[in-house]
Amino acid sequence: MEATEVLNYFREASGRIDRVLRIDLEATGDPELADVLRYAVFNGGKRIRPQLVLLTWRLAGGAGGEEEVCRLAIAFEYLHVASLLHDDVIDHSDRRRGLPSVNARWGLAPAILAGDFLHSRALDLAGEVAGREGVTLMSRAIGAMVAAEFLQARLAAAGQSTRDDYFRVAAGKTGALIASACESGVVLAGGGNVQRLAGLRYGENLGLAFQIVDDLLDYLGDPARTGKEVGNDLVEGKLTLPLLLALERAGTDDRRRLLTLLAATPEERRLGFAEVRELIERHGGFAAAGEKAAELLNEGLRSLGCFPGGRDLDLLSGLADYVLRRDK
Amino acid sequence: MEATEVLNYFREASGRIDRVLRIDLEATGDPELADVLRYAVFNGGKRIRPQLVLLTWRLAGGAGGEEEVCRLAIAFEYLHVASLLHDDVIDHSDRRRGLPSVNARWGLAPAILAGDFLHSRALDLAGEVAGREGVTLMSRAIGAMVAAEFLQARLAAAGQSTRDDYFRVAAGKTGALIASACESGVVLAGGGNVQRLAGLRYGENLGLAFQIVDDLLDYLGDPARTGKEVGNDLVEGKLTLPLLLALERAGTDDRRRLLTLLAATPEERRLGFAEVRELIERHGGFAAAGEKAAELLNEGLRSLGCFPGGRDLDLLSGLADYVLRRDK
Repeated sequence: MEATEVLNYFREASGRIDRVLRIDLEATGDPELADVLRYAVFNGGKRIRPQLVLLTWRLAGGAGGEEEVCRLAIAFEYLHVASLLHDDVIDHSDRRRGLPSVNARWGLAPAILAGDFLHSRALDLAGEVAGREGVTLMSRAIGAMVAAEFLQARLAAAGQSTRDDYFRVAAGKTGALIASACESGVVLAGGGNVQRLAGLRYGENLGLAFQIVDDLLDYLGDPARTGKEVGNDLVEGKLTLPLLLALERAGTDDRRRLLTLLAATPEERRLGFAEVRELIERHGGFAAAGEKAAELLNEGLRSLGCFPGGRDLDLLSGLADYVLRRDK
Repeated sequence: MEATEVLNYFREASGRIDRVLRIDLEATGDPELADVLRYAVFNGGKRIRPQLVLLTWRLAGGAGGEEEVCRLAIAFEYLHVASLLHDDVIDHSDRRRGLPSVNARWGLAPAILAGDFLHSRALDLAGEVAGREGVTLMSRAIGAMVAAEFLQARLAAAGQSTRDDYFRVAAGKTGALIASACESGVVLAGGGNVQRLAGLRYGENLGLAFQIVDDLLDYLGDPARTGKEVGNDLVEGKLTLPLLLALERAGTDDRRRLLTLLAATPEERRLGFAEVRELIERHGGFAAAGEKAAELLNEGLRSLGCFPGGRDLDLLSGLADYVLRRDK
């Protein structure tokens, strides 16, 4: 499948998802809440989670009108946006995708409450479309996300973590929701256990790769493209994969230097960002992390082997490609 | 039914509810999250929402083991605790029931995330026990709570509101969840539309009365009993029912004096608290608000007329009595 064909598909599907989002948000009771929700939902998001619900549904043999599956798809976007709203409050982030964050523009209460609303709306939609199983899948993902945030905070406070820790956090923070979106698509299409597990595995691996690319962009991204400054993870004391791999590969001196910078204050880490980036580059941390992401995506695509090949599989492969190559 | 019999019943039922809560919380994945949840859930709460689920379930003919209905009951406690966790973050409250709030003890992130976890766990339990309808009832209550918070913030910022505004806010903030608990109990027992509506109406009225008593305690409560200082509503610019009724009844001079104090800064309102309380008392605002609460409770009990009389109805009447007379 040609790259432009893939791109055209995703652009067109994204438009359909946005239309369903707009219609659903029109029913919001409070006018100010509706404003906050529209601002948070329509900010240039890539709709990756809803796209995955649609694609895995069709891959698993989902047939008929897309109205229902689109409502399940937007539920996953709601959950994603809810987690961003609460993340920005927790991190005191003033900006999101180059615009003021909801907490910066409306304040603490609207950001927390709009997140709560989207949370419950997401679970309601999941129940409406996919029944009790849909609710459980989604709720389990939220539980994993919350637990991963607690774990990540403990690791950052301790100032040390391993590659295993990194993958545990990434699996909960990013992998669980993406995996749940993929599994839900299969469930709604009436897929059996083997197919469900295949969807889940694809999603888990895609989620991990997605997180790795996010962490690479936090060192190497162009703020004009990503809409956020680089270096946040280092300042917050998060040991992400490129840094962990560089620590494993560095000799005694460079390793000691990196550990000294990590043990410093947030402000000193901010000042040391260019040096840390240079050291990671020197020891191949970025390249190795990128290879790991590519490996995970391949593994994810291999788990889809139980499904028939064809256009939907090509598109899921195209999505994996996009995740790896994205610059924002 | 004797008052002590009512009290003994609620004490015993509360113990059963707490046992189900403890068992459910044992499954929490992260140890620190589990600590936060236990601290937030077991802080002397009165378990009114779970009690209502159990009582309306039995009143509507629910039979057999209580295991299932208890799991629906604790879901409503989770939702209540989740809203308190997020409220304390939004209001920057350091204390809850005489102890440090979760945000004061653990910080912003654990308070927000633990609330998110309880939110989703509540909706999952509702789906597990009461299916899609249970999820929808609960999700609708969350939507009403969020919309009411937005409305209340706008009214407080505008510095003026009417009795209608007050009841709209109270219906969303407090009434919706209590009404949803009562309706859910009826639904789980297999009650029809008439019975569902009766449960809903009882809950709405009980919720409004509950809010009025809360607002009375914010002026007249004993901090040693309630675990919080008086005067918060006035400082935050909230025009609650006792004050609104006093404004309606006061002559020109006292009315002007009250409006002047309300238009002042939060700090000036804090200093003017004793005077405002005195003016409300002088114009019968507290007495009239108390009468309104009693009236609402009577109306609520009347809506239960479609159910057979007996022990469960007596207990629901006892609960209404408790709500009116509580001092904490």
